[in-house]
Amino acid sequence: MGGSLALALRGRCAKIIAVDRDAHTRENARAIVDETSDDLARIASADVIILALPVRAIIAMLPRVGALAKPGAIVIDLGSTKRAIVQAMEQLPAPVQAIGGHPMCGKENSGFDAADANLFCDARFVLTPLARTSPQTLAFAQSLVESLGARAIILDAARHDKIVAAISHLPFALASALMTIASEIAREDDLVFELAASGFRDTSRLAASDVTMMLDILLTNRDNVANAIRASARNLETLADMIERGNETELRVTLNQIAEQRRAVFNPKSEIINPKLQ
Amino acid sequence: MGGSLALALRGRCAKIIAVDRDAHTRENARAIVDETSDDLARIASADVIILALPVRAIIAMLPRVGALAKPGAIVIDLGSTKRAIVQAMEQLPAPVQAIGGHPMCGKENSGFDAADANLFCDARFVLTPLARTSPQTLAFAQSLVESLGARAIILDAARHDKIVAAISHLPFALASALMTIASEIAREDDLVFELAASGFRDTSRLAASDVTMMLDILLTNRDNVANAIRASARNLETLADMIERGNETELRVTLNQIAEQRRAVFNPKSEIINPKLQ
Repeated sequence: MGGSLALALRGRCAKIIAVDRDAHTRENARAIVDETSDDLARIASADVIILALPVRAIIAMLPRVGALAKPGAIVIDLGSTKRAIVQAMEQLPAPVQAIGGHPMCGKENSGFDAADANLFCDARFVLTPLARTSPQTLAFAQSLVESLGARAIILDAARHDKIVAAISHLPFALASALMTIASEIAREDDLVFELAASGFRDTSRLAASDVTMMLDILLTNRDNVANAIRASARNLETLADMIERGNETELRVTLNQIAEQRRAVFNPKSEIINPKLQ
Repeated sequence: MGGSLALALRGRCAKIIAVDRDAHTRENARAIVDETSDDLARIASADVIILALPVRAIIAMLPRVGALAKPGAIVIDLGSTKRAIVQAMEQLPAPVQAIGGHPMCGKENSGFDAADANLFCDARFVLTPLARTSPQTLAFAQSLVESLGARAIILDAARHDKIVAAISHLPFALASALMTIASEIAREDDLVFELAASGFRDTSRLAASDVTMMLDILLTNRDNVANAIRASARNLETLADMIERGNETELRVTLNQIAEQRRAVFNPKSEIINPKLQ
């Protein structure tokens, strides 16, 4: 994500410095950025500090960032949950400006070698201001987002976290449950995965997400994620009951309603989100 | 599916006749097949009769097919569950040969206007012979499947139905549960679907499947589908418990195992099924 952001911002900043502990990451970053460093102290010269890390790594790093950042510097993060990060940002020294960020575009492959300047094009990019975020900082963050080709959506962190539990964390949980059950059946029958087609592939895709990133997400959004998962488990039990009863009318009404909801959100031909929602 | 099959078989058969009640379907078929008809009696001249219909429509039609088919004709179906169809095929007159078929390649859009000659390329095509299926009929069905570029997999109907419950019908149920829960949250917050990205799109895709086709599938595979759905609901409750407990070690072990299973089945870069399984 940081690599894609650097690529998208190249030529629009006086200087881009990539700070990373990992020598291999810095090596890959060299083709994209103006300078690489393993020393966090290099952020002391930055006007804008963008934290592209898993959620809890961002939270753990914020005190050091606050101690190093120059007065007036703007700190933005790209973490996937926002309540815990925004809370930690509130503790930054008063002269440092901060705002939460979450680009709503996924990628299974991470690292600078997978960097893609177009990753943010037409994506939604949520910004979660703090009470102390100045109007100038918010305006700057919005223009940064728009310069990536993305669309800024300003939300409070609690609302963001509830929404992403439904559209991002629950899909991961369902993909993981699918992979678990299919693997159990595959232990008894070695043809299971050989017969899997595009439907299984797409529905299970998120189960291969980066585990460290997902752990940070799930553990900083526990209430919303657990609620959404339990609601889906209850819904699945109801569906199993309907199928066992074999009442065709109730099943048809239910499935038609769901299919219509899906078709209302995504154009069935292009699988692009319905323009009415854009 | 019938349209794609006709397109793939064009030039390899003496004559292809498309029989359909619907005038619009016949109109679209005209560019692909040699003859169209709304009269099922036209199958009386056919050496091979392929039934491309939802499962229960196939079962309902089999007695009439049996009465019309000439001695030695081969009846093949493309239905998505196989036990109920194979059982109905057992009732066909003795001189008619029959074998169940299920091409493992999905398509949301149906009809001759969505026909795709490459739909079957590299796909698995399950064949479920009856006790009475002759070796010659089985060999013919295999060569027909291979002429499509697909790979024939011979299975008994019960084994097929258990496998597809896990890799095809459970993904539909999970996609439907996701759409239901997200829609419930969207009723309280109109930004929910606007923020949905590729992860939600892919995980929910099957929820837009054709309802009539899915009803036939679910209602002719009730035991296997209900078992798979209930197992996934239990699995989701366990995952919600783990997230609520916040025990990072157990969560990391569990999610790592699932992610590794997913990566073992599909190549993470290409999302193509792992060559070891092919």
